Amino acid sequence: MKVYHQSDLDKMEKRYRAAFVNSLSGFKSANLIGTQNSQGQSNLAIFSSAFHLGSDPALLAVISRPNTVARHTIENIQENGHYTLNHVSEQIYKKAHQTSARYPRETSEFDAVGLNKEYLENFKAPFVQESNIKMALKLCEIIHIKRNKTDMLIGEIAFIVLPDNIVQDDGYLDIEAAQTICLSGLDRYHKTTQLSRLPYAKP
Amino acid sequence: MKVYHQSDLDKMEKRYRAAFVNSLSGFKSANLIGTQNSQGQSNLAIFSSAFHLGSDPALLAVISRPNTVARHTIENIQENGHYTLNHVSEQIYKKAHQTSARYPRETSEFDAVGLNKEYLENFKAPFVQESNIKMALKLCEIIHIKRNKTDMLIGEIAFIVLPDNIVQDDGYLDIEAAQTICLSGLDRYHKTTQLSRLPYAKP
Repeated sequence: MKVYHQSDLDKMEKRYRAAFVNSLSGFKSANLIGTQNSQGQSNLAIFSSAFHLGSDPALLAVISRPNTVARHTIENIQENGHYTLNHVSEQIYKKAHQTSARYPRETSEFDAVGLNKEYLENFKAPFVQESNIKMALKLCEIIHIKRNKTDMLIGEIAFIVLPDNIVQDDGYLDIEAAQTICLSGLDRYHKTTQLSRLPYAKP
Repeated sequence: MKVYHQSDLDKMEKRYRAAFVNSLSGFKSANLIGTQNSQGQSNLAIFSSAFHLGSDPALLAVISRPNTVARHTIENIQENGHYTLNHVSEQIYKKAHQTSARYPRETSEFDAVGLNKEYLENFKAPFVQESNIKMALKLCEIIHIKRNKTDMLIGEIAFIVLPDNIVQDDGYLDIEAAQTICLSGLDRYHKTTQLSRLPYAKP
């Protein structure tokens, strides 16, 4: 075992520290966020920071860092108010990762990486056709976190599209059966194997 | 494929909706938070909401819902300012899950579930001896999210203890080799298999 102190982290080279610290929270979700601006220019970007904020009302949040390649995504969400969250599956993770390249604003990552745009229910943002679990989100609120100049975008779920056979009797969604994968660090992709479902814990 | 609208979510029975919506963000991290109050009474609780907030400074955040079984954890963090985050591994996930039972305040979940308390470097909160990746955190800030009455606790990393052989040349930590697992929904535990590491994406 080795101990790393705050001062050791401070001394690390920037990219080394990013890889190291990004690994510490554990496994992360892998989602593609689809957006478009008011001219209809679409954008697609992979995010590992989407998380569950609450189920009643159903809220999901995403953390956005300043001046990242994902800035077009955030600008579009602020402009349009609508965005989509699409699970990354084993079939598309390489294309999903490629959306993190710094494409110019006029390039749609859908075209650049070879994923298909899909519009559903007149929602004003594009879905990823190849994704198995897709959500339409409406921006509720952006909370600025002063300490490290990040923004937390809170969205409420307008609708969800998913394979009916993954919905279990108690409401649980078998996202493993939908081939959803997860991430660690900045760029490692993992598939999962269920260990078990544990019953509601009682003392 | 099936479409679920916001109105369908509103109509779901409470526990069904919790299981359903908790599955939507994708896979989640699994961490045990160790705390103690000013009388030295220790507490241990599993959280699936810890996430990476930033690497410089190194910040981790946790979402806390009001009136949950984890309320003792949050009270202790507010009182003490120090807490620990301990990765849940395949070896301890059943005991980790059992910490979610509603034990009375005077019961330490360490004793109740059979995990060993460990104190390191004079830090004022207990670690889980059996956990392979352990972090000492100091509370920076609590952001109250009005929309659903949750709190986001932001903590800075004081120090980290981990197996030296999981640190790779570029700073990435092989958390899969450390047998860290992940969660989906409220109570499904999954181990992982790395698909691949992808290079830094360029257009």
